[in-house]
Amino acid sequence: MSLDAVLSHIDATLPQALDRLMDLLRIPSISTDPAFKPDCARAADWLVSELSSLGFQASSRPTPGHPMVVAHGGTGSAHLLFYGHYDVQPVDPLSLWSRDPFDPELQDTPRGKVIRARGSSDDKGQLMTFVEACRAWKAVKGTLPGKLTLFFEGEEESGSPSLVPFLQTNAAELKADIALICDTGLYDDKTPAITTMLRGLLGEELTIHAANKDLHSGIFGGAAANPIRILSKILANMTDAKGRVTIPHFYDGATELPDAIRAQWQSLSFDHAKFLGDVGLSIPAGEQDRTPLEMLWSRPTAEINGIWGGYTGDGFKTVLPAEAHAKVSFRLVGDQDPFAIRTHFRKWVEDQLPADCSATWHGHGNFPAGAMSIANPAFEAARQALTDEWQVPAAYIGCGGSIPIAGYFKTYLAMDAMLIGFGRDDDQIHSPNEKYDLECFHKGIRSWARILARLT
Amino acid sequence: MSLDAVLSHIDATLPQALDRLMDLLRIPSISTDPAFKPDCARAADWLVSELSSLGFQASSRPTPGHPMVVAHGGTGSAHLLFYGHYDVQPVDPLSLWSRDPFDPELQDTPRGKVIRARGSSDDKGQLMTFVEACRAWKAVKGTLPGKLTLFFEGEEESGSPSLVPFLQTNAAELKADIALICDTGLYDDKTPAITTMLRGLLGEELTIHAANKDLHSGIFGGAAANPIRILSKILANMTDAKGRVTIPHFYDGATELPDAIRAQWQSLSFDHAKFLGDVGLSIPAGEQDRTPLEMLWSRPTAEINGIWGGYTGDGFKTVLPAEAHAKVSFRLVGDQDPFAIRTHFRKWVEDQLPADCSATWHGHGNFPAGAMSIANPAFEAARQALTDEWQVPAAYIGCGGSIPIAGYFKTYLAMDAMLIGFGRDDDQIHSPNEKYDLECFHKGIRSWARILARLT
Repeated sequence: MSLDAVLSHIDATLPQALDRLMDLLRIPSISTDPAFKPDCARAADWLVSELSSLGFQASSRPTPGHPMVVAHGGTGSAHLLFYGHYDVQPVDPLSLWSRDPFDPELQDTPRGKVIRARGSSDDKGQLMTFVEACRAWKAVKGTLPGKLTLFFEGEEESGSPSLVPFLQTNAAELKADIALICDTGLYDDKTPAITTMLRGLLGEELTIHAANKDLHSGIFGGAAANPIRILSKILANMTDAKGRVTIPHFYDGATELPDAIRAQWQSLSFDHAKFLGDVGLSIPAGEQDRTPLEMLWSRPTAEINGIWGGYTGDGFKTVLPAEAHAKVSFRLVGDQDPFAIRTHFRKWVEDQLPADCSATWHGHGNFPAGAMSIANPAFEAARQALTDEWQVPAAYIGCGGSIPIAGYFKTYLAMDAMLIGFGRDDDQIHSPNEKYDLECFHKGIRSWARILARLT
Repeated sequence: MSLDAVLSHIDATLPQALDRLMDLLRIPSISTDPAFKPDCARAADWLVSELSSLGFQASSRPTPGHPMVVAHGGTGSAHLLFYGHYDVQPVDPLSLWSRDPFDPELQDTPRGKVIRARGSSDDKGQLMTFVEACRAWKAVKGTLPGKLTLFFEGEEESGSPSLVPFLQTNAAELKADIALICDTGLYDDKTPAITTMLRGLLGEELTIHAANKDLHSGIFGGAAANPIRILSKILANMTDAKGRVTIPHFYDGATELPDAIRAQWQSLSFDHAKFLGDVGLSIPAGEQDRTPLEMLWSRPTAEINGIWGGYTGDGFKTVLPAEAHAKVSFRLVGDQDPFAIRTHFRKWVEDQLPADCSATWHGHGNFPAGAMSIANPAFEAARQALTDEWQVPAAYIGCGGSIPIAGYFKTYLAMDAMLIGFGRDDDQIHSPNEKYDLECFHKGIRSWARILARLT
């Protein structure tokens, strides 16, 4: 039986596939809120049931948090692991939703039909593209494509506390030839993409301490250290006039873009003016000698995500505060070591403090960047499959955000990962009125069928 | 009858004077809170009643806010105006008070007896030192000392919105030879002082606007302008490595200290190490080539009183915010023009903004500095009187804070002012458990009797 038969079956049974997705979307599996713990377990059980019906050996595996779903099925020399997550973001503020976030609906919009619900794009709709591709394959061919391990997490939206221990404990069971991760997007509305570069992340919160209490700026102003001024000077020093980060050793390990990727990115003709114009800006910030896409995908950054100190209410208070605070995050690339950068950053800050001031620290998340080598032929095979489906050359892209799972697969399972997803920029993930385009769901299923045909 | 008789009468009747102060302290005349408007009127009426009983022509004069109390009495060639304020600060947080702030009590402490109540030092206890001096004078001599105008404000703690219009409307009635203002402190626990230099104040709140909405720092970080970074760079630029303010024309009109005042300040042997050490600091900030007292009293400053932007809650959010905010205040000296500095500051900030960012402004209070010329012989006369009472040479001092009333008397009534007060640094004005030392109240009354004897 040919791939065409599988694709035809996908087309013919799309309404049933949509019904199944709707069932999953009705389960409010908000992982960060303990009130929804039973719902998370219910979503895991629902997946186990679906996968079992397709012939997988599937189970819901307890963790200290929400369960992992692991399913094994099929035979063959190629062993693929597929990852998605069944948990969703909270829905606040509910008042901004046009309908109940857990009462999914297929809606007509000027840009086509959309599936409106929390989790439709992130990530239930995406993970179901793969499940439905397997179902169609099985229906048409009688077997699953290749040897498959499906691995669904229920804590992705709440920091994945159980993920690394689970990978470590179950490494032998989960290891495959390559991982397929479906939690990213298209390059643009029409262009499919494989994300091969993910930036790492280091979050740091610092507090500068000066006097032992808040002072009156009329009495102590000028003469006594102002921690807001000290913090401002340090944050101002963090980048130079050319937009380069000045922290010593910050760029250690920040490798340059491979030529093949650079050439491919250049062919994307990224519209930087539109990218900034859409958010009301026009002047590129950051390193002045880098192209826009490099800044977004392959260069490390140091951003200030929050700052506070002194009086911030209505009116005016001439206070000279005892403390000032900032939250700073670093996006990391290549082999930049988040632990080394944490050490360098803290020392660099402390070296700038007057001797009678001090800093205290609160480290937030940290994980290194992930860069996939496209030398693995699976990448080019998948790219061809996507190109066939979308009729537009698929792109190797970077992702400015940070998806730690790909790095974890590399670190703990010694396994490359391909990030292939079908989300669109306007899906409003993490926001009210999340949607997933029916076209993305449909062509996503078809894309996986084509990829599986080439990889197995 | 001699001055000694007046002083003896003050000593003999101190318990009754204290009882009267307690009556005034029981009235919760919090001017900033509309709920206490009747109490403010009641405090004004109480003063009118007291002053009328001493032979003053006293009245409570309505304003759009709280009433002014104006009283005229006595005869003689010397015409003195005395200023104080009967309103008080709010008392929040009430939980930090050891007793009801409006149930005053005389308490024994290791450092002597204190009058514990909101307003005991700021400013009811201080204004009553003058009233009680007049009472003793009248009791002993049968007349009031000289020609007196007493002027009590009820909006000092809430920005004095009615003050300038009232001064303008009633200039002829209020004009005297010199004003006496009792709303300041001793130089130290034992040394009386006349404050001759008051700094002006300019308050500015600025908002830096970048993108038209909050962005994800993983997607836009590096490439899009970060208003916190822009704000930090601007605030960092506001002072150079030597602590000098870099805003163009900022120092225009910032006159140098007169030699006589400089010599007098040097004799004070100000303990800068202790001043900073008391608040946990050791390294002088501000202009490196200025003496500590210059920094505190006679040099202009630019301080950051508040800053906020982005995510400031628990945990971490990789937001690249649309806006960042700061509150900045400038202390002004000599002839620095607050309106000119506002203009220069705003232009200086805006000149540093990327073309796709903007700033919006909210101006808070502004008034120029006040410097009294000690050439007026009243100053030396008052200084001698204070020296006689406290048995320590009285000091001409500056005040880092800003008391606009002295400048207003100069501007609207063409009248010099002497600021003489008896507060101590540990009075906790504006804070919970405000107190006024009984010694300060007692010697304050005696000091005014001696000053009145020399001036009338």
